Amino acid sequence: MSDEADTDAEVETDTDAETEVESNADETADDGQALTHVDDDGTVQMVDVGAKPDTRRRAVAHGTIHLRASTIRAIREDQIGKGDVLATARIGAIQAVKHTWETIPMCHQIPITNVETVFDVADESVTLSVTVETTGKTGCEMEALEGVTTGLNVVWDMVKAAEKDDAGQYPGTKISDVEVVTKEKETLG
Amino acid sequence: MSDEADTDAEVETDTDAETEVESNADETADDGQALTHVDDDGTVQMVDVGAKPDTRRRAVAHGTIHLRASTIRAIREDQIGKGDVLATARIGAIQAVKHTWETIPMCHQIPITNVETVFDVADESVTLSVTVETTGKTGCEMEALEGVTTGLNVVWDMVKAAEKDDAGQYPGTKISDVEVVTKEKETLG
Amino acid sequence: MSDEADTDAEVETDTDAETEVESNADETADDGQALTHVDDDGTVQMVDVGAKPDTRRRAVAHGTIHLRASTIRAIREDQIGKGDVLATARIGAIQAVKHTWETIPMCHQIPITNVETVFDVADESVTLSVTVETTGKTGCEMEALEGVTTGLNVVWDMVKAAEKDDAGQYPGTKISDVEVVTKEKETLG
Amino acid sequence: MSDEADTDAEVETDTDAETEVESNADETADDGQALTHVDDDGTVQMVDVGAKPDTRRRAVAHGTIHLRASTIRAIREDQIGKGDVLATARIGAIQAVKHTWETIPMCHQIPITNVETVFDVADESVTLSVTVETTGKTGCEMEALEGVTTGLNVVWDMVKAAEKDDAGQYPGTKISDVEVVTKEKETLG
Amino acid sequence: MSDEADTDAEVETDTDAETEVESNADETADDGQALTHVDDDGTVQMVDVGAKPDTRRRAVAHGTIHLRASTIRAIREDQIGKGDVLATARIGAIQAVKHTWETIPMCHQIPITNVETVFDVADESVTLSVTVETTGKTGCEMEALEGVTTGLNVVWDMVKAAEKDDAGQYPGTKISDVEVVTKEKETLG
Amino acid sequence: MSDEADTDAEVETDTDAETEVESNADETADDGQALTHVDDDGTVQMVDVGAKPDTRRRAVAHGTIHLRASTIRAIREDQIGKGDVLATARIGAIQAVKHTWETIPMCHQIPITNVETVFDVADESVTLSVTVETTGKTGCEMEALEGVTTGLNVVWDMVKAAEKDDAGQYPGTKISDVEVVTKEKETLG
Repeated sequence: MSDEADTDAEVETDTDAETEVESNADETADDGQALTHVDDDGTVQMVDVGAKPDTRRRAVAHGTIHLRASTIRAIREDQIGKGDVLATARIGAIQAVKHTWETIPMCHQIPITNVETVFDVADESVTLSVTVETTGKTGCEMEALEGVTTGLNVVWDMVKAAEKDDAGQYPGTKISDVEVVTKEKETLG
Repeated sequence: MSDEADTDAEVETDTDAETEVESNADETADDGQALTHVDDDGTVQMVDVGAKPDTRRRAVAHGTIHLRASTIRAIREDQIGKGDVLATARIGAIQAVKHTWETIPMCHQIPITNVETVFDVADESVTLSVTVETTGKTGCEMEALEGVTTGLNVVWDMVKAAEKDDAGQYPGTKISDVEVVTKEKETLG
Repeated sequence: MSDEADTDAEVETDTDAETEVESNADETADDGQALTHVDDDGTVQMVDVGAKPDTRRRAVAHGTIHLRASTIRAIREDQIGKGDVLATARIGAIQAVKHTWETIPMCHQIPITNVETVFDVADESVTLSVTVETTGKTGCEMEALEGVTTGLNVVWDMVKAAEKDDAGQYPGTKISDVEVVTKEKETLG
Repeated sequence: MSDEADTDAEVETDTDAETEVESNADETADDGQALTHVDDDGTVQMVDVGAKPDTRRRAVAHGTIHLRASTIRAIREDQIGKGDVLATARIGAIQAVKHTWETIPMCHQIPITNVETVFDVADESVTLSVTVETTGKTGCEMEALEGVTTGLNVVWDMVKAAEKDDAGQYPGTKISDVEVVTKEKETLG
Repeated sequence: MSDEADTDAEVETDTDAETEVESNADETADDGQALTHVDDDGTVQMVDVGAKPDTRRRAVAHGTIHLRASTIRAIREDQIGKGDVLATARIGAIQAVKHTWETIPMCHQIPITNVETVFDVADESVTLSVTVETTGKTGCEMEALEGVTTGLNVVWDMVKAAEKDDAGQYPGTKISDVEVVTKEKETLG
Repeated sequence: MSDEADTDAEVETDTDAETEVESNADETADDGQALTHVDDDGTVQMVDVGAKPDTRRRAVAHGTIHLRASTIRAIREDQIGKGDVLATARIGAIQAVKHTWETIPMCHQIPITNVETVFDVADESVTLSVTVETTGKTGCEMEALEGVTTGLNVVWDMVKAAEKDDAGQYPGTKISDVEVVTKEKETLG
C-alpha cells in the first residue's frame, strides 16, 4: 500500500521504479492524485503491489505518554516487581502490529519478521519505540505506528486510577510526539 | 475495567460507591495498588464489574495530526470531491472503537450505543474528535482513545505519498495532543 | 443502527417512537437524509440507539445458489453420508452472523439470542434460510443477510471442483434472490 | 484450497498438473470426491498446497443489488456530495476480501497483492465488481465473492431507511446475479 | 448455548426450569438429542436463549502443563525478575476467554464481567486456574476452558527452547487434567 | 518465533545454524535466556526470523477428551447420521490453527499450506490429531497445539448436555495427554 510512497523517494534503476517516480510527479500535484490509495476517479483503492520485488523493509516509530510523577513511580516499582504494566503494553503493541491489516483499511497483509518494543521511562512520561521488519512488497511504517499508539493506549488503560483527578477527569494525561523515526528499504540478493 | 477509576472520582451516595472510594484510598498509595488491573499480588487482572449497576456513560477524546499545507489542500479538494480520505478515516475510527475489547487486553466487551466522529481540518493539521456512549458497567474512554489514534493513523496512511520527503522519510508528520476531553456517567432511572 | 428504519415503519405509542416517525418524514425526502448512517453534514455515523427501549427482534433472510445437477447429487450423497458440505456452510453462516458488527462498518454489536439455518436442496440449486433473533435496541436483518451470503459462499467454496468447466470458469454457478423475508419487533413486558 | 479445482481446468505440462488432472477424473465422478475439501473418508479438510508453485492469480466477481429509483437518486446526490455510501461499501468490500480466510472455513491465508472495486450505479440497481490479485499457491475467487456479497450488504445497510415500506419490510430490495466473471492463472518466470 | 445443559442439572422452582428438566429427559436418551446444539434433524444449531432470564453465572476451569525442573527454575527466576512469561500467558488466557464466541462455533457472545487467572508453579509443572463470571442467559464454562487451554499453550510457546531435546522434540512436555472445577448459577433479584 | 528452538535441535551445516547452536548454549543456561521470546533484559519480544531461510515444516500434535460411554455412543450414532459433532470440531480446529498468530501473542503470521485433522473415537474417549504444514521461517507446533485444544473444547461444547451430572457439574469430563507427536523441518532446494 505504501509503495508509491516508498519508491518515489528512493533511487532505483529499474523501469518499474521510474514509472512510479513519474507518477509521483503527479502525486505531488495538489489534487486527489497526491493521496495514497486514491485513484484517478478519486475513489479509494488498495495499491497494486503485485509487480513489486520482495525487499527487506524496516520502520521505527515512537511516541510518548505524559503521566504524573506519582504514576511513574508506581510503574517503576511495579517494574521492579512484576512488570505487568509494561509487559501488558508490550503485548498490546505487538498484537496491534500484527493486526494492522484489519485496523487500517487500505493496508495489505504482510509477513512481519520482527517486532521490537522499547520503553523509556522518564520522570513524568513513558516513551515507547516500536521497530517492525518485513520482507515483502510494501513498507511497514503503519504497523510501527499502530504498535506505538495502541501500546501507549494500553499504558493509559493500566494507570487510569492513578491519573484521574477528583472529578474523574484526566487533566494531565496526554499522548504526543507520535512520529516515524526512520524507514528503510534494502533490496535483496 | 475502568470502574475503580470511575467510582473513586465521582461523588455517589450508595454504599457501593463508598466502598470503592475507600478502596481508592489504597489505590492512591504509591505502589502496585495504584495501577488499574493490578491486584495485591501485583498480577494483571480484569476488574470485576459484576456488581456494578448499569449506568449511561459517555467519553470524548481528541487528537491532532500535523501535515503539510499542500497535503491539507489535497484533502480539502478531495473532500469537496469524494471525501474518501476522511470517510476512510472515519470508518477506521468507528471500527477501532468497536474492537477496543480485543486491542486493549484488560478492556471488557461493552455495548456501544453511539459513536460520533468529527474532523476539524485546519491549515496544517487535522483534529479528530471521537465521542463514545455506552450503557453498562464500565467507562468508555479507552474506546474513544482507540478511535482517535486509529482514525489519525488512517489519515496518515492515506497521505503517505504527499507527506514524504525526497529521502522517503516523514520529517514533519506527527500525531500529538491525544487527550480525553471529558468523561461522564449518569445513573439510570 | 437500523432503528430509524425500524421505528418509522412500526406503529408505536410512546413519544420516542413518534419523534422518529417525524424524523422519518425527513428521511423519505429524496436527499442524503434518506440514507441510514448519513447525518445532516452528509457524513457517515453510527445511529445513536442509547435511548431505545430493549425489544425482542427477529429477522429472516434467504438466498439461493444455482449449481449443476451433478453437483447437487454429490451434495445429496454426501449429506446421506457425512453431511460435511452443508455442515460447513451452516457453521460459516452462524459465524458470519456473529461477526456482522465487524463486517458491516456501521452495525452495532448486538446480543444474538438465536440463529437458525435451514438448507433446501433442490435439483439444481440450494436455498439457505437464516433466522436471527436478538433482544436489544437495533434490528438484526443485516446479521441474517450476512449469514445467508456467507453461507452460500461457503457452499460455493466446497463445490468448486464440481462446478468448473474445462476452462476453469464457473459458467452456471450463481447466487441470486438474496432477500429479507420478514422483520419483526415485539416490545417486551 | 482451490488448487485441485484450478489445475484440473487449466492446461499445464508439468507432472504436478497432470497428476491433478487424473485425480480430477475421479472428482468428476458422482461421489464425495467431486467435492473440494472432502477427502476419501468424506471428511472436510483443507487442500494441501505445499507442493504448488507460486503463480500469479486474478479473479473478478460481480453482483447486483436492486433498489428503488428514489434510493438510487439519494445515492447519486450523496455521491456528488460526500460519497460516503459507496465509500463505506468499498471499504467493507476490501476488508471482506482480506478476511476471507476466516470467513470461509477451508480457505487459506493468501498474500493479496491487489483489490479493485468498481460500482456501476444504474436507475434501479447498483452493480459491484471486485477484482482480487494474489501471487501464491491458491486461487482467489472466494476472496472476490466475499468482497462482492459483503460490499452489497453494506450498501443495503446504508439505505435501509429509504428501502423499507410502511410495514417495515423490504419488498423490492434484492441481491442477485452474484457470479465469478473470470479466473486467471499465470505461471511466473 | 449451554442453557439446556445448565438448567436440566440445577434445582429451580420456576416453570421455565421445569420445562427444561422435562426436555432434558429426552436429552439423556441415547441419540442425537443428547447432543447440545444438535436438533431433531441432527443438524447443528445454536440454542435459542431468548426466553432465558438473566442470571449471574460463574465457572472455574483448570489445567496443568508438565515441564522440566530446569524450565520451572527458569520461569521462577523470570518471575522474580520481570514475570513476563506468566504475564504473557495470563494475557493470552484473558484474551482467549473474550474470544470464545468466535473460537467455539456454537457459543453465544456473552457479557463477561470478570476473569481471574491464577498460576500454581510446582517443581515440574504449572497449573493454570481460570474463573469466568457473566450475567446473562448462558453459562461460561467454555470461556473458562478456552482460557485454560490457550493460557497453557502460551506457556508452552514461551519455554520451547528449554523444553526441546537434542532431536528438537518435546518428549516430556504435556498438557493434562483440563477440567471444569465448578459451575454455578445464581438467579438475580 | 520458534526458530531459536528449532535450530538448536537440528543438525545443520550452514553458518546460520551454527550461530544458533552457540546461542543455544546460552539458552540451556538456567536463566531468562532459556526462555523463548525473552531477551537479555528479560523482556518479552518476538524472535527476529528475517534472516532465516524458507524451509518446509511439519508438526503433529494430539490430545484426548475423556467422555461417558453413553456420550460416545451418541457421537457414533450422530456420526453415522450427519456427523455434525465431529464436523463442527474439525472446523473449529482448522480455524484455531489459522488464528494462532493472534491467540499466542508471540507467534508470527505464517503461510499454512496444509491442515489435517483426524478423530479416533474410542469407547470412553475421543483423540484428535492435528497435522500442520507450512513453508516459511518458523515452526508450526503451536498451530498444531491450538488446533488440538480448541478442537477438543468444541467437542466438549457439543456434548455438554450428555456429560453433566445431576448437580450440573462435569465429574468425568477431562482433556489430557496434549502433546507434540513430531516436529520436522526439511530444507528446500
